[in-house]
Amino acid sequence: MIVRSEGATIDIPSIRRVGLSIVIIDQRVVPLKLDLVTVCDLPDMIDCIKTLRVRGAPAIGSFAAFSLSICIARGIDPAFAYEQLALSRPTAVDLRNCLDRVMEAFGLGGTEAALAESDRICSSIVGSCREIGKVGAALFKKDERIMTHCNAGALATIDWGTALAPIRVLSRSGMRPFVYVSETRPLLQGSRLTAWELSMEGIDHKVLADSACAPLMRGGLVDSIIVGADRVCRNGDIANKIGTLDKAILAQRYGIPFYVAFPWSTIDPACACGEDVPIEFRGCEDLEQYLRAGATNPSDCWNPAFDWTPSDLISAFITEKGIIRPSRLSDALSGPS
Amino acid sequence: MIVRSEGATIDIPSIRRVGLSIVIIDQRVVPLKLDLVTVCDLPDMIDCIKTLRVRGAPAIGSFAAFSLSICIARGIDPAFAYEQLALSRPTAVDLRNCLDRVMEAFGLGGTEAALAESDRICSSIVGSCREIGKVGAALFKKDERIMTHCNAGALATIDWGTALAPIRVLSRSGMRPFVYVSETRPLLQGSRLTAWELSMEGIDHKVLADSACAPLMRGGLVDSIIVGADRVCRNGDIANKIGTLDKAILAQRYGIPFYVAFPWSTIDPACACGEDVPIEFRGCEDLEQYLRAGATNPSDCWNPAFDWTPSDLISAFITEKGIIRPSRLSDALSGPS
Repeated sequence: MIVRSEGATIDIPSIRRVGLSIVIIDQRVVPLKLDLVTVCDLPDMIDCIKTLRVRGAPAIGSFAAFSLSICIARGIDPAFAYEQLALSRPTAVDLRNCLDRVMEAFGLGGTEAALAESDRICSSIVGSCREIGKVGAALFKKDERIMTHCNAGALATIDWGTALAPIRVLSRSGMRPFVYVSETRPLLQGSRLTAWELSMEGIDHKVLADSACAPLMRGGLVDSIIVGADRVCRNGDIANKIGTLDKAILAQRYGIPFYVAFPWSTIDPACACGEDVPIEFRGCEDLEQYLRAGATNPSDCWNPAFDWTPSDLISAFITEKGIIRPSRLSDALSGPS
Repeated sequence: MIVRSEGATIDIPSIRRVGLSIVIIDQRVVPLKLDLVTVCDLPDMIDCIKTLRVRGAPAIGSFAAFSLSICIARGIDPAFAYEQLALSRPTAVDLRNCLDRVMEAFGLGGTEAALAESDRICSSIVGSCREIGKVGAALFKKDERIMTHCNAGALATIDWGTALAPIRVLSRSGMRPFVYVSETRPLLQGSRLTAWELSMEGIDHKVLADSACAPLMRGGLVDSIIVGADRVCRNGDIANKIGTLDKAILAQRYGIPFYVAFPWSTIDPACACGEDVPIEFRGCEDLEQYLRAGATNPSDCWNPAFDWTPSDLISAFITEKGIIRPSRLSDALSGPS
């Protein structure tokens, strides 16, 4: 991803392994500053995931794979490290998938194989995202006005992004996409992270409140919507950041195509449908100090971090293997891969 | 409205006239503190409306009426004061209606008549809201789980509220309503103001992000939705805080009654339909510092303060004259009043 810092323009991944440590862009402080943090031990690794310094399903997966292989190389009990990392966040399926791959490699070939597998996972995610960009770009016309939600960009996926990958490809080929970014309460991944990535890349965009999306769509200002996914179920339902479901419902009402972009690793064939996805609930502190301020009966909150969207609201999936109709996903899963 | 401050419980209106000044609860600092501010001159009055220290259509109307009559009594040119106040915010119809009533009274009876008329407007709004509470309470069962958006409470209407009036009546009669409060970005009138009013009144509630409303409704956790209005059109379309339209669309999808509560003065017979309502757009600063922070191309924004909801998404209007089907509004307007 392109990042401009102190006058210089550099192209860096949001996560990379350097020997037995990981260097990440701390997503809690973007865009106020660009802070490259080095992480070496298991408690710090888990803290990075839990406090969202690393977030986004593919980025969490790759970070967890690096974490596990590094822990193994540092002599920590593999089963213990696996368990601690697997429990750090519940909704994204990539986390456990990537950990399983590292454990399998370790079982077959020991420490070096585990490290190599985590590097392969990382390269594979970046390669998939680059391909998602090419595949997806074909869906959009010149000057397309695209809405996105949350951050499914390079920060969430090491490089390129999922939802943002086609937008990058369009921009770099002179197709001038315009992006509407819903701010994505409560943690503002849209206005903090996606807007920052777009600014860095020089892509025109506007930020809006999540609840302003309905009149924007009714007003004919949005040609298409593209989001990422944290888990894709066998029947084509998808789990993604809270605020995805309402946008899909609004898109259907106003006749706007609604695309979901993800690497194949985000599909969880073991998960039959959206209702089976474990949804993470977070604490009230995300919803600000007003909840506790001086009231005799302080306010409680209802704060799910994700929701699931039924497949019939989704126009198409954009994957590294091509465009897929959600209704055809189960065929694609059972057919020859 | 009941307010607890420094151990004491008091019952005060959010706005009142004291001689030739107005005492208001400053809505910019609630709930962090309860600040009673005295306003005496025209620039301060306009500033109070523009900076949302006074907000909510009926409260703005009453405050503007007090302001105009006090300006007249203080020797300011009535036409000048009228014009300045009328231009302070564009969407709510009550503002201009109330100013017209004061000007008419002034024309007929001079300064004393203008002051008396502004007092009458204030009492009339409070009386209407009390009646809206009684009328609306009949729609809800014991333990009803009610969602509301923005603040249509006593802060917005001097006392009782519009959407919150039936909830207050239910609570005071032991019916134990439970309220879901959408935080209402970008200015958080839900989590700041409505949650505070409910806490003060001892009514159980939870705050949620605007974009979490869809899964809450799908999950069967909401029995009904009630909101206020800033302007009601002849055909039954209503303008209200940004984020009202999407909730009405979601309510229809999930089969949840969607009620709009307002005093008769909020109806604008001159406005044929929602598309004719002037929608106020606000600056980017409401959407936080992230929009400007250090990026080479800082983010722009799309920040409407209101949206309009078509009448066919509204189950019923709750007014001081009774429950009205939106499709019957034009009959009610043309019939004997």
